[in-house]
Amino acid sequence: MMRRTFLHGAAAVGAAAMLPRRAWAAADLVPIYQQVEKRRDEALARLQEWIRQPTIAAESRGITEGRDLAMRLLRDAGFGKVESVSTDGHPGIFATLDAGAPRTIGLYFMYDVKQVDPREWSSPPWDARLVDLPRLGKVVMGRGAVNQKGPEATFLAALHAIRGAGKKLPVNLVLVAEGEEEIGSPHFPQIVSQPAVRAALKRCEGIFMPSAGQGTDGSVTIALGAKGVIECELVSSADTWGRGPSKDVHSSNRARVDSPAWHLVQALSSLVTPAGEPAIEGLFDKVRPVGDRDRGYLDDAARRLDEASAKQSLGVERWARDASWRQALEDLASRPTVNIEGLVGGYTGPGGMTILPHRAVAKLDLRLVPDMTAADTLAKLKAHLAGHGFGDIEVKMTGGYDPNSTAPDSRLIRAQARVYERAGIKPIMMPRSGGSWPGYVFTGEPLKLAAGHFGLGHGLRAHAPDEYYLIESSDPRLHGFDAAVRSHVDYLFELA
Amino acid sequence: MMRRTFLHGAAAVGAAAMLPRRAWAAADLVPIYQQVEKRRDEALARLQEWIRQPTIAAESRGITEGRDLAMRLLRDAGFGKVESVSTDGHPGIFATLDAGAPRTIGLYFMYDVKQVDPREWSSPPWDARLVDLPRLGKVVMGRGAVNQKGPEATFLAALHAIRGAGKKLPVNLVLVAEGEEEIGSPHFPQIVSQPAVRAALKRCEGIFMPSAGQGTDGSVTIALGAKGVIECELVSSADTWGRGPSKDVHSSNRARVDSPAWHLVQALSSLVTPAGEPAIEGLFDKVRPVGDRDRGYLDDAARRLDEASAKQSLGVERWARDASWRQALEDLASRPTVNIEGLVGGYTGPGGMTILPHRAVAKLDLRLVPDMTAADTLAKLKAHLAGHGFGDIEVKMTGGYDPNSTAPDSRLIRAQARVYERAGIKPIMMPRSGGSWPGYVFTGEPLKLAAGHFGLGHGLRAHAPDEYYLIESSDPRLHGFDAAVRSHVDYLFELA
Repeated sequence: MMRRTFLHGAAAVGAAAMLPRRAWAAADLVPIYQQVEKRRDEALARLQEWIRQPTIAAESRGITEGRDLAMRLLRDAGFGKVESVSTDGHPGIFATLDAGAPRTIGLYFMYDVKQVDPREWSSPPWDARLVDLPRLGKVVMGRGAVNQKGPEATFLAALHAIRGAGKKLPVNLVLVAEGEEEIGSPHFPQIVSQPAVRAALKRCEGIFMPSAGQGTDGSVTIALGAKGVIECELVSSADTWGRGPSKDVHSSNRARVDSPAWHLVQALSSLVTPAGEPAIEGLFDKVRPVGDRDRGYLDDAARRLDEASAKQSLGVERWARDASWRQALEDLASRPTVNIEGLVGGYTGPGGMTILPHRAVAKLDLRLVPDMTAADTLAKLKAHLAGHGFGDIEVKMTGGYDPNSTAPDSRLIRAQARVYERAGIKPIMMPRSGGSWPGYVFTGEPLKLAAGHFGLGHGLRAHAPDEYYLIESSDPRLHGFDAAVRSHVDYLFELA
Repeated sequence: MMRRTFLHGAAAVGAAAMLPRRAWAAADLVPIYQQVEKRRDEALARLQEWIRQPTIAAESRGITEGRDLAMRLLRDAGFGKVESVSTDGHPGIFATLDAGAPRTIGLYFMYDVKQVDPREWSSPPWDARLVDLPRLGKVVMGRGAVNQKGPEATFLAALHAIRGAGKKLPVNLVLVAEGEEEIGSPHFPQIVSQPAVRAALKRCEGIFMPSAGQGTDGSVTIALGAKGVIECELVSSADTWGRGPSKDVHSSNRARVDSPAWHLVQALSSLVTPAGEPAIEGLFDKVRPVGDRDRGYLDDAARRLDEASAKQSLGVERWARDASWRQALEDLASRPTVNIEGLVGGYTGPGGMTILPHRAVAKLDLRLVPDMTAADTLAKLKAHLAGHGFGDIEVKMTGGYDPNSTAPDSRLIRAQARVYERAGIKPIMMPRSGGSWPGYVFTGEPLKLAAGHFGLGHGLRAHAPDEYYLIESSDPRLHGFDAAVRSHVDYLFELA
């Protein structure tokens, strides 16, 4: 689902390296930092090998190979127990590293990546080439570079460096990984609810996913949760409608035969207002109003983040509903959405084709905020369609889950803020990411863990062509690979 | 555009061969009929060679090869002058055959075919294999088999047979062909308006396109004209809207970024009523009411055509607006349509992809009846969109033309009826075909020719997979290849 918050702004930070570090860092971590540098080439080679293994859940492509590679990478990084976990879909991974430490920290990994259309890439998506980008530096380019193999490999490099320096890991680790993140994590609850996995997670103080936390201006945002999501297909066809043709027929027949494509258009049209805003009945009923704390975060974020660069990176001239920058940030964090990901019906090739299609499909995603749930929202979508004369339209949910929230005063979040601040970056706090990740399996019953993302470093274009992860930065505000690895070393010691 | 009328019914006809023929037929035509049989294998090989040459205007595929092959086939059949005619698009062909006869007849050919998706075919579309179909007989299967290479090759086989019998052709021929029929004949007027072509066509008593005139029950319909058509794409994008992203972005941004896909849905929704009926302002203003003559034809057609088999062949359970069979036939002939051929936006592959697409496209076709015109209807579509707040939606017309009409008492039509009746088939007269062909260039100013389609024989699945043309019939109601060739021999002598 991708958890980047798409917040890019002007919270530039100056010369991070010149700021003082804590005393223990100087004493304990310097040999580790030396190992980070020394082992850079092998760590980078590991990441490239990983990117070169396509693993696409939506296409059931390279699943076994991708899982096996991820398991080997975990073993190589020092995890003592690494097991495959069967599900009704693609398998997950459960791994533990017992360092004999008093505290235990959880990690969430994904080993799948998003689909690609190789024609859209300037560098082939599975080549993992090193590419020089102007004003940015040397990046590794490929599918999964930033979402999520790059940051995950960065974390593993930190484990290699700690071991390479002859140090003991300061915390024990419990890791769960899935291979279906990009299709909405339909079977992730099956992984987490395995008794052994749940028992191990219960020992954790919190759980995080490695991420490339820096926007293009160097700023870092800590999102205190994420929206939930429903991905679904709305299918209109004569089979369920009882009108229209059972196969594509010549379009001249439109004069006497009903059109499932028009039926879909009318159904879709009922889901939004004329301005394209959600109109599903009851959709906003459970939306928790934005509280004082979050308003404060948003006021601060609107001051510190740069609207112009956000607009530029999205290629938009104005926000929806002509919102202010402050309001646009609030909407991203707090407003449910009903989005069309794709429309597919009839003839989709070049030019025209005079057919009356027997079937048309809209791919939708809905983003959910507390206290909405995926189950309740799906029921409302179906009830709305039925109530508007579109009960025949099939709603096929392909993935999704509830929103999640984590308290800013949890140890997990406070440790993050301290590490970022020591790197010279005052993180921007956001009530919630506009994107989604299945953190609800950790934050909800019965685990109730703090959960979030962590990592310095930078990358962009997740889900898009030319996805990249920064290796050697030529922008003083952005941390390259080594610094990102060091941020994980710092975080583990901070959590300890 | 395909001019089949999709009328299949119960107008079965009994043993055609036993009915008496005109005296001259017995005397003059028997040696020609013998040549038809003798030359069957070479005629069939010629058709197969033609089908094996893919020529797809929409994909600019095989145009030169297809044109050259069509020109060679015309020369081989006896056309003395065969010329390529340049246009702003793909070239046409102009050919004449001067038999020194008093009368001259026009012919309209197309040398392009519709696109294919080979995965959908049971026999590869370019193999032109002979396939046995249950209860039907031996067919040639391939793209273009019935639309239109099969019937065109059948006509050419008639010319070969007449020459082979040492007979003189009873009429002179003027032939115009295009390679863009399947994309809406955008440059066909350029071909017909060439001075030499126009002058030759002016000498004609009428013009026809060879076709496979028999429905599955053996019935033949004579359509006294055809609907006009507009094929166009409606494109919604941030480029023209000024809202939404300039490229696909992560779908979480829907909370703050407008959606061109929703904008398209709303625009489309404005074009039809909630029941999917055309709602473009003024669309019906110029529709000429159905007159007494046409009502008579429709009453007769409703009695003679079988509703159940029409429904079955289309795979529909009920007609649009729950119309009666009589009304459904009238709608097919006389009702303008607004059809969605295809919807394409954002992610169209398997599963989902969490993007907010920057662009979405609907492919539409509109069918026009007298006295609508393509230019006026396009203007009304654009005005409607602008009037409903969708003036930014780009309307890209990719092809189309006006409707056409031909009088039932023209020599062209009367001769058709006589030939069919001598074959034991009382043709069903229809006011108009539900499909379209660019006959307006002949029926309109300045030529004002009678124009139509002619031919016995049977084929189906134009524009669809497993398109076929019947070669050897095992259904006594359906004429095979030889009989179809003979029908063209008869028609030429009848026209003389």
